[in-house]
Amino acid sequence: MKRTERVGAIVRILSQNPNQTFSLKYFCDLFHAAKSTVSEDISIAKKLLSKMELGAIETTAGAKGGVKFVPTVSKKREDELLDYLCEKLSDGSRIMRGGFLYTSDLMFNPKIVNGVAEIFAAKFIDRGADYVVTIETKGIPIAFMTAHMLNLPLVVVRRESKVSEGSTVSINYFSGSSERIQKMSLAKRAVEAGKKAIVIDDFMRAGGSIKGLWEILEEFDVEVVGTGVVIASVEPKKKKINDYYPLLLLGNVDEDAKIIQIFR
Amino acid sequence: MKRTERVGAIVRILSQNPNQTFSLKYFCDLFHAAKSTVSEDISIAKKLLSKMELGAIETTAGAKGGVKFVPTVSKKREDELLDYLCEKLSDGSRIMRGGFLYTSDLMFNPKIVNGVAEIFAAKFIDRGADYVVTIETKGIPIAFMTAHMLNLPLVVVRRESKVSEGSTVSINYFSGSSERIQKMSLAKRAVEAGKKAIVIDDFMRAGGSIKGLWEILEEFDVEVVGTGVVIASVEPKKKKINDYYPLLLLGNVDEDAKIIQIFR
Repeated sequence: MKRTERVGAIVRILSQNPNQTFSLKYFCDLFHAAKSTVSEDISIAKKLLSKMELGAIETTAGAKGGVKFVPTVSKKREDELLDYLCEKLSDGSRIMRGGFLYTSDLMFNPKIVNGVAEIFAAKFIDRGADYVVTIETKGIPIAFMTAHMLNLPLVVVRRESKVSEGSTVSINYFSGSSERIQKMSLAKRAVEAGKKAIVIDDFMRAGGSIKGLWEILEEFDVEVVGTGVVIASVEPKKKKINDYYPLLLLGNVDEDAKIIQIFR
Repeated sequence: MKRTERVGAIVRILSQNPNQTFSLKYFCDLFHAAKSTVSEDISIAKKLLSKMELGAIETTAGAKGGVKFVPTVSKKREDELLDYLCEKLSDGSRIMRGGFLYTSDLMFNPKIVNGVAEIFAAKFIDRGADYVVTIETKGIPIAFMTAHMLNLPLVVVRRESKVSEGSTVSINYFSGSSERIQKMSLAKRAVEAGKKAIVIDDFMRAGGSIKGLWEILEEFDVEVVGTGVVIASVEPKKKKINDYYPLLLLGNVDEDAKIIQIFR
């Protein structure tokens, strides 16, 4: 194989498997090439991705060392994505009865999900997490893509315990959106004690369900090392949790005038 | 930029945006290079991905033409993935009370989700679909990744209508797993009449919920052009639907002996 082909293959394999370390030997065997040759290939791949702002390649030395792709988001791409989301979200026809916003089309749109997940992954990559955790339903695609980019398993907390989940641990929490006590449950075999988790959700008002996720994880002795939400409501000012990373803020929603305040 | 760098960048950009057509001009502008140069770059990228079985690049001529990445799965990778899944699924500790199988760890595992979604995407890419549709919850990651690889929006049918979904259409269906009538609902603005959909789900017993998905889509005048399920139960032999594509078959589950029959 020629250098051009090897570099192309390295870019494809690494970027398809983000945050997963491949040994130099893996590529030497794949290409039937010497270590020095592959090292130089990787160095070229690294420079080109960095120059084009298409992601980062990190190399680590030593016996356990190797090379991996790390998701990055340039300031320009982040700005473009969040500006686009703000524009889409400020469309007055999204206002449903009761002042709720319709966002499913955005939260289930692969381009938006990928971009948002890249931002969360870049933000939380150094937290040493073992899981990405969300509560069903609308945040699942974004939480899943974040998990994919961090090379971690996704854990989905359910609203009802299902027969196929086996024994579960359940807690009650107060949901501001529905103004009532709700239940969430997690299968006993879903997580291991002593591990760390990043919590991701699509929307947060007072923070009741995120606080519920923190509490249910505490029941399992799993530490929360980061919390990201796509949209956080400005009101109520007093939240049930204090440490979270919102991408967008939702201000006033005027149901009659069909005006939505959304900003970064 | 050198050829090696251009080819690497083309591989990254195309494979990050599967089934999305980029014009030749897009890359000419990006690299400040002539059309003949970029054409040759693309031809090299295409050959290397094909040779390494890392995906396919398709080029189309004409004013609307361009170049796109198409997900493919080699027989070898498909075999490896499905064999691995069979092995994991036949672990007797997965049997929950009532004979249900615990599969969340697999359905939420990014490596497995990616592989399964690639198989579905390759299978259904030529159906001319406009949406990938699933019902919450466990099939969402696989349906989402399939949607991503086909460059289509994901549509999630809910079990309960939520306030943030606005007006919805609901139907009742008989769920064999829970042995009762259940409800599913879809927001009126989620899909457009006259469009086509691929239905994806994680598990199918008699096919009640898949049939429900077909029926609710019919209410919206959306045609189902393909149905994929990860695991289909052998029993009952008589299914409520006839045209579906299962990856694995679940035979007898012996709760006492802890033996699971799973095969391809």
